[in-house]
Amino acid sequence: MTEDLQQINLALLGFGSVGRAFARLLLLRRDWMHREFGLDWKITGIATQNHSMAIDHNGLPTMRILRAGKRDFSLDRFHQGPACSSNTDFIRQCGADVLFETSVFDPSGEPAATYIREALRAGLHVVTANKGPVAVHFRSLTRLARQRGVQFLYEGTVMDGAPVFNLVRQTLPSTRIRSLHGILNSTTNYILTQMEQGATFEAALRYVQKQGIAEANPAFDIDGWDAAAKISILIQALMGGTAKPEDIKREGISENTGRLVRAAVRRDRRIRLVARAYRKGRKVIGKIGPEELEIFDPLAAIRGLSNILILNTDTMRELAIIENNPTVEQTAFALFSDLVALLRRPQ
Amino acid sequence: MTEDLQQINLALLGFGSVGRAFARLLLLRRDWMHREFGLDWKITGIATQNHSMAIDHNGLPTMRILRAGKRDFSLDRFHQGPACSSNTDFIRQCGADVLFETSVFDPSGEPAATYIREALRAGLHVVTANKGPVAVHFRSLTRLARQRGVQFLYEGTVMDGAPVFNLVRQTLPSTRIRSLHGILNSTTNYILTQMEQGATFEAALRYVQKQGIAEANPAFDIDGWDAAAKISILIQALMGGTAKPEDIKREGISENTGRLVRAAVRRDRRIRLVARAYRKGRKVIGKIGPEELEIFDPLAAIRGLSNILILNTDTMRELAIIENNPTVEQTAFALFSDLVALLRRPQ
Repeated sequence: MTEDLQQINLALLGFGSVGRAFARLLLLRRDWMHREFGLDWKITGIATQNHSMAIDHNGLPTMRILRAGKRDFSLDRFHQGPACSSNTDFIRQCGADVLFETSVFDPSGEPAATYIREALRAGLHVVTANKGPVAVHFRSLTRLARQRGVQFLYEGTVMDGAPVFNLVRQTLPSTRIRSLHGILNSTTNYILTQMEQGATFEAALRYVQKQGIAEANPAFDIDGWDAAAKISILIQALMGGTAKPEDIKREGISENTGRLVRAAVRRDRRIRLVARAYRKGRKVIGKIGPEELEIFDPLAAIRGLSNILILNTDTMRELAIIENNPTVEQTAFALFSDLVALLRRPQ
Repeated sequence: MTEDLQQINLALLGFGSVGRAFARLLLLRRDWMHREFGLDWKITGIATQNHSMAIDHNGLPTMRILRAGKRDFSLDRFHQGPACSSNTDFIRQCGADVLFETSVFDPSGEPAATYIREALRAGLHVVTANKGPVAVHFRSLTRLARQRGVQFLYEGTVMDGAPVFNLVRQTLPSTRIRSLHGILNSTTNYILTQMEQGATFEAALRYVQKQGIAEANPAFDIDGWDAAAKISILIQALMGGTAKPEDIKREGISENTGRLVRAAVRRDRRIRLVARAYRKGRKVIGKIGPEELEIFDPLAAIRGLSNILILNTDTMRELAIIENNPTVEQTAFALFSDLVALLRRPQ
């Protein structure tokens, strides 16, 4: 049977918990890909920050690499071919059709944007779950992809694998987004809803850090940078606006917010860190900040790590999507749904 | 420009408020269809229950017909060609590529199912917003469409134009629905949330009837038949089950439910008419009934005419979609998004 299958070569830049979960999902969906697309995949390259990199055009042994564990682990022994000393070399030599970029979030978008640019220039489709480069360089990266005739997809940047960009593009034809708002950052929502129940800011923050949910630098969550990057992507990708993260009016949460949270609860109300985008003349404005909501507001019902996005549209009026308590598996599914979108979409 | 455009012929069976809203939306999206698909549409047939029917292979004057108003209105004067005495004749003679079926809901699925079957046999794609025929004859109608190489689409049967079937098929690849639940009937949700605020059952019901939101026979809403038809479609289309509306355990709401609603409010809880589908061995079970929920349950936040559907999946864990206060325009958009799905999907 395998002889009749078409082959697609995949490369992973970043092999932390998201990259690993994605590799596991690929293994689980191998048969589904055969049936659905008559397609088999192999991973021809993996590049990591701390565990070296490996390229094998015949396909790396995904299962063995996953089993090797995370500690004291080097990919070197799986590498075949000429030595490869940088991520730039890796992108040029990995022989992949699609690059999956999942390196660590940085508000500057670097160095991820540089790697994405190199991959697009080299004719690879790029799928990323990394907000930084998409938010900061949306226009130049989408233009470059168009020029090179490849796709640049980023479903995982907002609400993990919950369909947001695919939702609007594939299921809401001819729809104009008038405005949108929601809760897009899990760390701050967890902290706010824990404080409602009496926990301290510190204790709640420590928990999400321990769980690996908070960004490596928790200030990116707490100061609203993560939500600002997300609202910037939504504005640029779905509303035709140009606001970059630094253009978003941004207020985060702090120890102090605890008092507001408890005062709100006493009045049967709730505080949520709300992200908003709305049109003003020909511009699209974005802002992030704590808001006090009535108890029966749909946003008040979003607790813990859950997210919600409410779209105000000309075709469907108000439509909301909620993602309940996501884990790293849901981000991995974002990469997988982009891979499928890429396979389904005419080139 | 028009000379380069491909043509698609549409026929409408049923021309009540949904059919009219759909015709208006088609007019508004004519340019969008040109740009997106290089396609122009014409309506070659309209058949109504009370206003006669008209066929014109050169295209009926949609705008004039819409302006003619609803009272003392007959389509006869627009008819071109041989007389046409039944809906069966209409389907055979209308010369359409796609039939949009929007006749009145009946739990039996008839006579709509007969017309859909005739259209599919005659090689027309069929788009319907009518729950009855889809719920009762799901398997035979989808099989017939497959045999004839045409498409049978029904996005509008559940939550109007909010993407449900298109959501799962187009944006949740390789996903298994483990269970689902939600609030799928606007009339009963409106009555329940009005009773929370002190209104009587009768007054709330009268309002939704006046607004044209309740089914022509309100018992279909109140006794849970509408929700049962919807959960049956979800079970058959998304979960591979076979439960028809009569197999759904069904409890509706009544005057009496008012007492429960008010008692629940006093305990800071809410009553909602919840539709559920879950797996039990190899079967999928459906049920409809009032449930008492905690105030912070996402279902408790759904008020008035709004709907919610929560999917429990193997890829995205829990994912919810909410439609806020839909009108007939949102059902019209369901027909439009099915038309677009049909144009995008390889035949």
